[in-house]
Amino acid sequence: MSMVDITAKKAVYREAVAEGVIRLRPETIQRIRDRSVEKGDVIEVTKAAVALAVKKTSELLPLCHPIPITHVDIGFEFLGEDRIKLVVRVKTIAQTGVEMEALTGVVVGLLNIWDMVKKYEKDESGQYPETWIENIRVVSKVKSLHA
Amino acid sequence: MSMVDITAKKAVYREAVAEGVIRLRPETIQRIRDRSVEKGDVIEVTKAAVALAVKKTSELLPLCHPIPITHVDIGFEFLGEDRIKLVVRVKTIAQTGVEMEALTGVVVGLLNIWDMVKKYEKDESGQYPETWIENIRVVSKVKSLHA
Amino acid sequence: MSMVDITAKKAVYREAVAEGVIRLRPETIQRIRDRSVEKGDVIEVTKAAVALAVKKTSELLPLCHPIPITHVDIGFEFLGEDRIKLVVRVKTIAQTGVEMEALTGVVVGLLNIWDMVKKYEKDESGQYPETWIENIRVVSKVKSLHA
Amino acid sequence: MSMVDITAKKAVYREAVAEGVIRLRPETIQRIRDRSVEKGDVIEVTKAAVALAVKKTSELLPLCHPIPITHVDIGFEFLGEDRIKLVVRVKTIAQTGVEMEALTGVVVGLLNIWDMVKKYEKDESGQYPETWIENIRVVSKVKSLHA
Amino acid sequence: MSMVDITAKKAVYREAVAEGVIRLRPETIQRIRDRSVEKGDVIEVTKAAVALAVKKTSELLPLCHPIPITHVDIGFEFLGEDRIKLVVRVKTIAQTGVEMEALTGVVVGLLNIWDMVKKYEKDESGQYPETWIENIRVVSKVKSLHA
Amino acid sequence: MSMVDITAKKAVYREAVAEGVIRLRPETIQRIRDRSVEKGDVIEVTKAAVALAVKKTSELLPLCHPIPITHVDIGFEFLGEDRIKLVVRVKTIAQTGVEMEALTGVVVGLLNIWDMVKKYEKDESGQYPETWIENIRVVSKVKSLHA
Repeated sequence: MSMVDITAKKAVYREAVAEGVIRLRPETIQRIRDRSVEKGDVIEVTKAAVALAVKKTSELLPLCHPIPITHVDIGFEFLGEDRIKLVVRVKTIAQTGVEMEALTGVVVGLLNIWDMVKKYEKDESGQYPETWIENIRVVSKVKSLHA
Repeated sequence: MSMVDITAKKAVYREAVAEGVIRLRPETIQRIRDRSVEKGDVIEVTKAAVALAVKKTSELLPLCHPIPITHVDIGFEFLGEDRIKLVVRVKTIAQTGVEMEALTGVVVGLLNIWDMVKKYEKDESGQYPETWIENIRVVSKVKSLHA
Repeated sequence: MSMVDITAKKAVYREAVAEGVIRLRPETIQRIRDRSVEKGDVIEVTKAAVALAVKKTSELLPLCHPIPITHVDIGFEFLGEDRIKLVVRVKTIAQTGVEMEALTGVVVGLLNIWDMVKKYEKDESGQYPETWIENIRVVSKVKSLHA
Repeated sequence: MSMVDITAKKAVYREAVAEGVIRLRPETIQRIRDRSVEKGDVIEVTKAAVALAVKKTSELLPLCHPIPITHVDIGFEFLGEDRIKLVVRVKTIAQTGVEMEALTGVVVGLLNIWDMVKKYEKDESGQYPETWIENIRVVSKVKSLHA
Repeated sequence: MSMVDITAKKAVYREAVAEGVIRLRPETIQRIRDRSVEKGDVIEVTKAAVALAVKKTSELLPLCHPIPITHVDIGFEFLGEDRIKLVVRVKTIAQTGVEMEALTGVVVGLLNIWDMVKKYEKDESGQYPETWIENIRVVSKVKSLHA
Repeated sequence: MSMVDITAKKAVYREAVAEGVIRLRPETIQRIRDRSVEKGDVIEVTKAAVALAVKKTSELLPLCHPIPITHVDIGFEFLGEDRIKLVVRVKTIAQTGVEMEALTGVVVGLLNIWDMVKKYEKDESGQYPETWIENIRVVSKVKSLHA
């Protein structure tokens, strides 16, 4: 096993967009929209968690190169009455791509949403029959000589 | 916003099992099974990444309480020819549950699989049209006075 | 040098409240109140940064014992037109107090406010003539057998 | 919310100096000067804590870019009989400034001083009536094409 | 104390190789070779631990500069019937060398081997009379204008 | 692979002492004793690095349980004219032993000594022909019902 050798590669502009979806109860979605979740503002706290997670990627994935991050953008989209899509865009000037960074932002962001609304999603026996995360993808990757 | 007050709760036995699935090309799955992925042994490195991630949960999720982890068990299941299911079980004696820890193990483990097989999943323009993560769930939670 | 030996001490209820103040331009304070700061919602992101920082205390201070945190509460108070006071309360059941944890939450929270409004505080030469942090104190410490 | 896009900015020489003051009892200050604090050498341990904290800045502040640090210098000044001023200088070649890094070094360093002398600052009820941190400022920022 | 000023140094190609040896019981070595250690595959998990540790070097050593890592290669050699040598090669394009990174990979890797085989190395009173780590060295350092 | 299940084990008093030796040039040892090493006070900075490293053990070793640390004690012994022995004692009340924590403190401490005296140990081609780390051992482990 080894971390791929990128020593001789040129640092160029890289961008990656990843996304994923969390399925929640409609009442929970409504609370998030109303900013009435008891633990705090889900959207804003999730943004902070995503930005920090993107920067932690190479600490979580053993073979991921540590790379500078020059931009993180985070978007939310409400799909129907029971889903939130989280979209994370990451930019860098580096020798390797940032899709793992964008994906790490997405999964940690979706988990943070879950963590903040646990109370509203559990059934009477403490299980989560109606909560799941799905459709985590890399939407696009860009690599070019100019930003 | 605040981290829920669990000061007065009694530390009891807690267990959570979470799972998730990554969809890969059949040829990539075959390489993982043959242990012929160039970056190393995907299953074993993923286990290490999961165990470390479980312990990092409260660093990733702002409102998650730091809790002792007394056991982590990690399982893989090959579903059909193009999917791997990752199952993570976490145990503790604590004042709050460990479902976020089990989920964190699952998502970081699935991302690590992706990271190690990127080369075999990218198309000629560097995109990932056939790779995604899906069906991340809490399978079960247990809470009882005795381990 | 050594980390004080607390092995034989009994874990009891502990609570600490710390606070501190950041001085900003009145226009910046107004932007924070209006939630019109370009980088995001200063109050909400700061809460996330505080909660995470409290949990990182023993990683930052070499001789600080790692202790479980059972509650973090974060409050903001606008003082006059040019100051924000940040108050952080931390609880635990542990063998040693949590004042360093509360203080760490306060200083990181105040720095996060600064980081998010840098643009509005710099003068034309990039300096910060009107920005400072002051009056960081431990407001109270509690130690008792019952929570 | 997003991390400001610095992708297209040129990496140039940057320097920032920040400072802050801790107020302690004169007897505590004397112990620090005599290197007779029981927990160890306050000045030297604080230097280590500052250097590590400077490097952790982007892990603590969600929207702070991770940047390389090429120099950290740490100075102490005794003010009167009851105050210590801590001054931290940070240098880099980067696309954005290092004032948050210098400030992070200052606040963590001041907290470390506090942590090491807690015993001498507490009153009989465990409170800190005579201890506080004040006057945390960015003293200067430099940005130029040449180091 | 200060972190050496490397601001004006040119980033050039750097490489370092470090190694170290762990002495274990012959039966333990045999288990590692057979991949029959109960805790998992020692070689593969150690590789993951080494790669992550190399990236953590500047968090562990206060005066170590954070530098990009462009390659990590990890090798194992069985010496006689009772020793394993671990060799770690690290590459970068940076202003300072990577020997501390290679050494950090070696010591954490050797400790991970120990951690995974504790059960087979302890005597009946829980001591480790036959286990030790030795001969940790920098084998070579390279610095040149071209990778 | 799994992290050993310690859920049902009772938390009892645990103590471990580990040690290791670094071989340096006699002139370097003299500088350390004289506290004339340019980078700072090697003994004091090393103590800080050891205390922090002990607390990071479970982040470095994938299968190591996170456990509370209630005491760390760090000692130095000069052996002859060219060696320093570092001894680290760790205590806890936990379900598993702390020998990996003591060992982690030792290896990171020895690396920190090396890092601070690199300049005096390198030969004219930048190599370290006279520097090595040796004899890292667990000196003793204690486990008992009472601290």
